[in-house]
Amino acid sequence: MQFHLNGFEPGDPSIADPEQRLPPAGSLGSLPKEVDVLIVGCGPAGLTLAAQLSAFPDIKTCIVEQKSGPLLRGQADGIACRTVEMFEAFGFSERVLKEACWINETTFWRPDDRQPANIVRSGRIQDVEDGLSEFPHVVLNQARVHDFYLDVMRRSASRLEPYYSRRFVDLQVRGGNDPDEHRVTARFEHLKEGQYPEIETVKARFVVGCDGARSAVRRSIGRNLHGDSANHAWGVMDVLAVTDYPDIRMKCLIQSAKDGSVIIIPREGGYLFRIYVEMDKLAEHERVSDRKIAADDVISAARRVFHPYTLDVKEVAWWSVYEIGQRLCDKFDDVDEGDGKLPSVFIAGDACHTHSPKAGQGMNVSMQDGFNLGWKLAAVLRKRAVPALLKTYSAERQAVAKELIDFDREWAQVISSSKGADPAQTQRYFVQHGRYTAGTATRYRPALLTGAPTHQDLAKGLTIGMRFHSAPVIRVADAMAMELGHTVRADGRWRLFAFAPQGDAGQAGGKIHGLCEFLGGAPNSPLQKFTPEGADIDAIIDLRAVFQQGHRDIDVGGLPALLKPAKGRFGLTDYEKAFAPDLKNGRDIFAMRGIDRERGALVVVRPDQYVAHMLPLDGFEELSAYFAGFLVATA
Amino acid sequence: MQFHLNGFEPGDPSIADPEQRLPPAGSLGSLPKEVDVLIVGCGPAGLTLAAQLSAFPDIKTCIVEQKSGPLLRGQADGIACRTVEMFEAFGFSERVLKEACWINETTFWRPDDRQPANIVRSGRIQDVEDGLSEFPHVVLNQARVHDFYLDVMRRSASRLEPYYSRRFVDLQVRGGNDPDEHRVTARFEHLKEGQYPEIETVKARFVVGCDGARSAVRRSIGRNLHGDSANHAWGVMDVLAVTDYPDIRMKCLIQSAKDGSVIIIPREGGYLFRIYVEMDKLAEHERVSDRKIAADDVISAARRVFHPYTLDVKEVAWWSVYEIGQRLCDKFDDVDEGDGKLPSVFIAGDACHTHSPKAGQGMNVSMQDGFNLGWKLAAVLRKRAVPALLKTYSAERQAVAKELIDFDREWAQVISSSKGADPAQTQRYFVQHGRYTAGTATRYRPALLTGAPTHQDLAKGLTIGMRFHSAPVIRVADAMAMELGHTVRADGRWRLFAFAPQGDAGQAGGKIHGLCEFLGGAPNSPLQKFTPEGADIDAIIDLRAVFQQGHRDIDVGGLPALLKPAKGRFGLTDYEKAFAPDLKNGRDIFAMRGIDRERGALVVVRPDQYVAHMLPLDGFEELSAYFAGFLVATA
Repeated sequence: MQFHLNGFEPGDPSIADPEQRLPPAGSLGSLPKEVDVLIVGCGPAGLTLAAQLSAFPDIKTCIVEQKSGPLLRGQADGIACRTVEMFEAFGFSERVLKEACWINETTFWRPDDRQPANIVRSGRIQDVEDGLSEFPHVVLNQARVHDFYLDVMRRSASRLEPYYSRRFVDLQVRGGNDPDEHRVTARFEHLKEGQYPEIETVKARFVVGCDGARSAVRRSIGRNLHGDSANHAWGVMDVLAVTDYPDIRMKCLIQSAKDGSVIIIPREGGYLFRIYVEMDKLAEHERVSDRKIAADDVISAARRVFHPYTLDVKEVAWWSVYEIGQRLCDKFDDVDEGDGKLPSVFIAGDACHTHSPKAGQGMNVSMQDGFNLGWKLAAVLRKRAVPALLKTYSAERQAVAKELIDFDREWAQVISSSKGADPAQTQRYFVQHGRYTAGTATRYRPALLTGAPTHQDLAKGLTIGMRFHSAPVIRVADAMAMELGHTVRADGRWRLFAFAPQGDAGQAGGKIHGLCEFLGGAPNSPLQKFTPEGADIDAIIDLRAVFQQGHRDIDVGGLPALLKPAKGRFGLTDYEKAFAPDLKNGRDIFAMRGIDRERGALVVVRPDQYVAHMLPLDGFEELSAYFAGFLVATA
Repeated sequence: MQFHLNGFEPGDPSIADPEQRLPPAGSLGSLPKEVDVLIVGCGPAGLTLAAQLSAFPDIKTCIVEQKSGPLLRGQADGIACRTVEMFEAFGFSERVLKEACWINETTFWRPDDRQPANIVRSGRIQDVEDGLSEFPHVVLNQARVHDFYLDVMRRSASRLEPYYSRRFVDLQVRGGNDPDEHRVTARFEHLKEGQYPEIETVKARFVVGCDGARSAVRRSIGRNLHGDSANHAWGVMDVLAVTDYPDIRMKCLIQSAKDGSVIIIPREGGYLFRIYVEMDKLAEHERVSDRKIAADDVISAARRVFHPYTLDVKEVAWWSVYEIGQRLCDKFDDVDEGDGKLPSVFIAGDACHTHSPKAGQGMNVSMQDGFNLGWKLAAVLRKRAVPALLKTYSAERQAVAKELIDFDREWAQVISSSKGADPAQTQRYFVQHGRYTAGTATRYRPALLTGAPTHQDLAKGLTIGMRFHSAPVIRVADAMAMELGHTVRADGRWRLFAFAPQGDAGQAGGKIHGLCEFLGGAPNSPLQKFTPEGADIDAIIDLRAVFQQGHRDIDVGGLPALLKPAKGRFGLTDYEKAFAPDLKNGRDIFAMRGIDRERGALVVVRPDQYVAHMLPLDGFEELSAYFAGFLVATA
């Protein structure tokens, strides 16, 4: 898609008339008096969380935002491979892939040895290594990501819309550990133009502060961000410009001899691009706002780096100046380590960790926070899981944020150090850290939700604690070529992927048949224990089997009942539970993910797409014990 | 996507609450008094045409429909590969691919030799041969296809909405050949519940009857459908059912020993499927309506064929009984062959050709009618092309419809002949005619728009008169892997694909450079002659070049100016004109499409994706002469 040719216009570019693109106004009326979950802030973290909760109409969710409407321009733009995988679960990856700019290659530029005032290309690499994800690294206006989430919320069974123009004032938490009680009371100012703001009070069982780096929710629970005081000012601009610089549609890292660094990020629509420009080093305790930097200063600085290429800026769609700062909160909820209490207030996104924009992490990590917390809140509120599950949010996400900030700090130093920087080293570093940048390096440590790696060798390419790395399969019943990972939807369900041993086609006496017998009938089967009366058999834990044979060699008629379950009010057959490798195209999931062909493997995948555990196909006791650790038996 | 589990619900399945899926009500108020194009009927032909015209806000289009709102269920469902290619040009292929059921394999069933009362699987084939199209064969409720077109119209610069509840009464055509005159006067009854219908009169420059097999517009211009009187009754049902028949999620052709044939078409959402059932042979002059066939009769007939498998129908979402009839009109407009007049009334879709539903042709051919006529009407109305262009519509589409009806008649006979049918022969026939079914066999003969095959050998895999067969390429400026054919949007523009000779990277002295010099500067260049003052250089004819080198070996800075044109009010650079083969993945477009590596090739592609001409890269005179045949020079 090409757009923005005659100027940046916010909103959905598939609507021809920009006047028709205005977003819906949000919820009218007053805030509800009492809700299950109150989300403060409509950024990436808040909207991911709200979109996840909106799938459950039995949960009363309210999301508020201080601004008077949805974001329209600027802010973050990098969308990591891992994030697109999550968008797939939310059902809008194809919209992002269509509209976004794909980052295919990154080029590196440095001073020309012979004429150091000129920059020359010193390297060029594929941006994402082959096979890292089925999705690319893309960039898109953050506002459009918000739009897609708002659309998910609007189409959901909850028909959720944010309340805008609400400024968070304060909150109070009552003691106690009962998740059914509305322990938090929060107050907001309803900002109305030309009127004195009206105070609204909301009681909530849980409050989540997604209100950014200056989070008032964070302050209200007495937590702080710790970390570097920044001393580098950077300018950022989204521009429409004419240049003879040849790589303007590539991601570029440019180091000049004397004028600092520039990063180019091509943007959606084929014309727009983003420039990050290193401005002067700040003095100690100096703030970037003290410098009174104007857009023209940023353009001039970029031009100096671009030499000998020209840069003729026609329109600045958005610009800002900021200080690099990697900062982190030591706990992401309102209870201290080991004090035994149940958290009732959480913080997510920039409210608990900030990153340098140039590693493209901020928005991505924030959305993963929301995804991590969302299904856990839903499971506890719906009485499917024990309240202690909620403690895993801070434990898991704080460790991840710390790791990324360490990476980010290193990265920012590499980028900023123009003096004496070795461009080859920059490039090596970039390749080495591609997995961080892609968001696929996240790994949760063994704990309540993450099993011990006792049987990790059953599938070496699917790592316990890391995201389930999808691979191609053929659905047996209709010969559909698809990605196995795309069966994981953002619906709060668990997945069991049973990889069959060689020769097993689901027949009686085989391991898959045995597993289905256990899951379908044994009293300690987690499907029996945790599936509510009257619900479909896959409502809590969804079993899918992958065989080693070609799809034509699996007899649908001979599959165990659990692999063609009767569902819904008519008892219709669900035919989407059995898969085979894509042998025709030589993309055998067993080979690609190192699955033990003799023994097969049973892979437990969390509702947020992470591999929770890996077990033998007959590890019935271990499987039962795993789920019994946090799920709540029905009746 | 899985849906319809608890019953068929019309509309967008991504909206959780069926009550929220109701479509917009259409245009309010009275019909406009005077329009450029009046389209009668909101079926596939009418909506494709309307969607195409809606891209041009300077054209006043009105589309009317007799029903009181959009279609919600039933009718056609087969979407051929070629049709998805067209949807890509309209910008909604990804929505169809996501929601539709993909037809991956077709299986064949016949009476068991030992127990002829039972059916057994006799064969299984891949439904579409490899490489036939970059898109699959899919099935989706016709109503959803309508929805996607309505959405294109709504988002267009014209913001076009149909007028519902309008019954066509009659029309009158004034003589003359002036396309600027409103030569047609049409009358409609505005049907209002409980009121006497109001008569509305519309004057139009052109009227297009897309009003189905009983077209009143066709009747009003004195044309008739000719062809078979049908003597086979078929039942068709969309059902939610439980069965132990193992191939229910495949397309199946089932021939029973004594009870006729059944065709199974799996449908979107994973549960719904369609059954075509052969009912009794009709007596001569007997109509199917005489038989008083009920839904239960259709189910019983299907059950007899299914033996020994069970079929327990839980819900019938839609059903109908029809006679097979292949019928054709000998001319698709209101002027007779060779009488020199300018047509002012056209007919499209079922109004001029009807097909047996089982070859899955009807909806697809109808949409191609609309696509063929749409850009021609736009070009004439916008004074970009001579009025005689409009005569090519009937000439091209009538020949295609005849070819398909011949195929269809043969196919219907093969399917129906249960007695003595050789299933292996059925299967062979099916494979052989896969290209017809896929919609890719259409070939226009040399005429005003279709060049002579003098230079056809320059690209053996891109046939003059057939649709441009896309292939993968890498866009040079941003290393984007994409399909070359997807640069062809439904925007009324022509494309010139210049395939470079070996060693040519666009440098001065090369063929590509020479072509760009000619196109960019010569007085007889079609770009110079036909591009309106002030419009972008690619507004009428859009040049794209494909080089033979890897994308990293093409220097963006060294490309001719025409391959990085300055566009729009800022003169921004369009970087999407130069491509390279996908060498990394071994998918070289030059090899895949048999392009002459020594000489290269210049391929002219029509606005509806058909290859219009093939010329040498320096065939300047022939290129000029081709476009001068029908385009109108600007001042």
